[in-house]
Amino acid sequence: MTYDHFFFAALARLHAERRYRVFADLERVAGRFPHAIWHSPDGPRPVVIWCSNDYLGMGQHPKVIGAMVETAERMGAGAGGTRNISGTHHPLVELERELADLHSKEAALVFTSGYVSNETGIATIAKLLPNCLILSDARNHNSMIEGVRRAGAEKKIWRHNDVGHLEELLAAQAAERPKLIVFEALYSMDGDIAPVNQICDLAERYRAMTYIDEVHSVGMYGRAGAGIAAREGALHRIDVIEGTLAKAFGCLGGYIAANADIIDAVRSYAPGFIFTTALPPAVCAASTAAIRHLKTSQWERDRHQECAARVKSVLDAAGLPVMPSQTHIVPVMVGDPERCRQASDLLLAKHGIYVQPINYPTVPRGTERLRITPTPYHDNALIDALAEALVDVWTRLELPLGHHAIAAE
Amino acid sequence: MTYDHFFFAALARLHAERRYRVFADLERVAGRFPHAIWHSPDGPRPVVIWCSNDYLGMGQHPKVIGAMVETAERMGAGAGGTRNISGTHHPLVELERELADLHSKEAALVFTSGYVSNETGIATIAKLLPNCLILSDARNHNSMIEGVRRAGAEKKIWRHNDVGHLEELLAAQAAERPKLIVFEALYSMDGDIAPVNQICDLAERYRAMTYIDEVHSVGMYGRAGAGIAAREGALHRIDVIEGTLAKAFGCLGGYIAANADIIDAVRSYAPGFIFTTALPPAVCAASTAAIRHLKTSQWERDRHQECAARVKSVLDAAGLPVMPSQTHIVPVMVGDPERCRQASDLLLAKHGIYVQPINYPTVPRGTERLRITPTPYHDNALIDALAEALVDVWTRLELPLGHHAIAAE
Ligand SMILES: Cc1ncc(COP(=O)(O)O)c(C=O)c1O
Ligand SMILES: Cc1ncc(COP(=O)(O)O)c(C=O)c1O
Repeated sequence: MTYDHFFFAALARLHAERRYRVFADLERVAGRFPHAIWHSPDGPRPVVIWCSNDYLGMGQHPKVIGAMVETAERMGAGAGGTRNISGTHHPLVELERELADLHSKEAALVFTSGYVSNETGIATIAKLLPNCLILSDARNHNSMIEGVRRAGAEKKIWRHNDVGHLEELLAAQAAERPKLIVFEALYSMDGDIAPVNQICDLAERYRAMTYIDEVHSVGMYGRAGAGIAAREGALHRIDVIEGTLAKAFGCLGGYIAANADIIDAVRSYAPGFIFTTALPPAVCAASTAAIRHLKTSQWERDRHQECAARVKSVLDAAGLPVMPSQTHIVPVMVGDPERCRQASDLLLAKHGIYVQPINYPTVPRGTERLRITPTPYHDNALIDALAEALVDVWTRLELPLGHHAIAAE
Repeated sequence: MTYDHFFFAALARLHAERRYRVFADLERVAGRFPHAIWHSPDGPRPVVIWCSNDYLGMGQHPKVIGAMVETAERMGAGAGGTRNISGTHHPLVELERELADLHSKEAALVFTSGYVSNETGIATIAKLLPNCLILSDARNHNSMIEGVRRAGAEKKIWRHNDVGHLEELLAAQAAERPKLIVFEALYSMDGDIAPVNQICDLAERYRAMTYIDEVHSVGMYGRAGAGIAAREGALHRIDVIEGTLAKAFGCLGGYIAANADIIDAVRSYAPGFIFTTALPPAVCAASTAAIRHLKTSQWERDRHQECAARVKSVLDAAGLPVMPSQTHIVPVMVGDPERCRQASDLLLAKHGIYVQPINYPTVPRGTERLRITPTPYHDNALIDALAEALVDVWTRLELPLGHHAIAAE
């Protein structure tokens, strides 16, 4: 290999910018979440996970594990083919029905991940609309940005959650030109929410199609866990709802839900859907079990919100720089990649608390943070221990603590 | 929604071209593969699957199912996060080690699918090579084509498996320009094999980097199932080996194996790797079990080749237009999308045999075919029944049968 130096140099750049990432090797223990084992360089150590996107702990729910185990035993491990070539299995068909029902849409389509849903879903929809203009929120997730790029269509970026700006961009276009508005319901790094109904008002006024990413809200908000659009009474106003099975539903996979023709067209034209092996039966059955459970059980959602509210108020009272968030996401600002990593390392090494540093490119430079995600299974003792640990780390690193912190100490 | 007619029109085009796809809703039965249940419009019916890419039946192997079940029970369903944010778990780390060892490389990196490995892997590698020229085989899979597109680099397509043409293209470039040759080890729709060592000769002569897709060969060829490059003694000559966990290994996921810096650079820069939830622990553990089993067990590979040879000779003796294939893939030419679908429908409805029609865009127009994939679990009685059913269908549809067919009848 004659190109080693290029790869070496690419890595050196990351080290120099202090954003080389080290993954923590974890072993979750079903039934004990958020407790887990960390395979540290010095051997296994117990840790408490405070940054999981298994937001409701459904990954360890007995119904979910039960469905996975039962289906694997009955049908085997993999799907054995692409959707078209022997890979469409009954648990997948049932999952798609369940998802359509969840979002009150005619049909749904499952992909191997939420990432792939956005990437191939947005690109395919836009390509089927002649001369389409895509209007994309400035903070949209990388998977949506890639979908927009691959569409090959003209795009305009509207300032994050700024409906005034969106309207300006829409109004500047000919009425008959097809337009696709893509945005997230809940932005996962800041925890803020899109003005869904106002966006739908504009979409109706300017005859645009709407595509919403509910990856960080399905299962957690709205009646039956149908998401933010459902909570806002806007489900019927949204054309395409995209979601994941890998966060609040605790499994793996992504999907879109929409009217039957949109789903059938994406099914028929999307390369990222057509040319890849289908999800395993056991994974689909586990997802269906999670969705069904959360359709009727409110316990997880209530406990989740209570825990998030408590974490925010306890950390805030301790003087920690909790960023404003309307949701279950609790970002704590550090503002520097190196200290963000140090804070995370100290939490893990000294306190057995695992919160990954969030650095560029996941968030803009200068806004590096710890992103804390409470779940229904983080009890008050764990919350208090988290606050104490954070204050200790902030003090050691001489990071600014608010006036509350002094009172609390 | 004001755009319904666009989606409707897109579907109408497929119907008009006779390439609208209908997925068969299947239910595999672990321990009984290739027998399965087809959820037909008239209710469940038993079928024999003859087009699965679970080539070695590992999806139903007790060790594989056992690992999946045991891991799900112990660790839960999903990974709970992206690789960086709480999603790197111990079975995934072990799987990556196992894959590096399988291909005698320093390191390996797992993606959610083989599709994503190619798409984000090729794009990322090419982007890290300044002014890179990509040389891509004309028959490369859609996932590789998308990877090449996303690289944004200049590309040249070389005629399928034509090393003369590849050399012409290489020779026309400045020696110091970085070049990336991307090709498949085994082309899955025709069953032919790349001239791996000749390509490596050229790569060495013209200082190009090599990227091989072993999706349809890992597990099945070479010592320990390391693939075609291994069989040809060329493993050390290939820079990046890409493979899937979803075909011969019977599970889900994809990977690349290479030297440590290449893997670390892709890990650090590839958006399709960074911004998506990691594979579940149970899926990774099942894959590791399949790889380990096939490292030492030769039985599946031997039986697989025997069965494929027998299918080819029996179908050929029956006068069916078996296309030349050097491998386990047995394509039978139809050459027309409508009749290809009819042949598949008749096989399913009249004979309980499931072979999906392969139409454009998976193969070029005019080469529509039935693609038969024997496994170690298709016995002689099943092979004879397949041949009889095909002859019956060919006769009903008045498709051409060779002189052998008459003798066989
Ligand atoms: C907004 C958003 N959309 C999509 C995804 C991708 O979903 P998945 O993890 O299922 O690929 C993520 C993160 O993973 C996300 O944050
Ligand atoms: C050559 C080739 N590469 C990659 C893939 C994608 O692999 P996966 O099914 O794991 O996404 C396929 C087919 O699925 C393929 O045929």
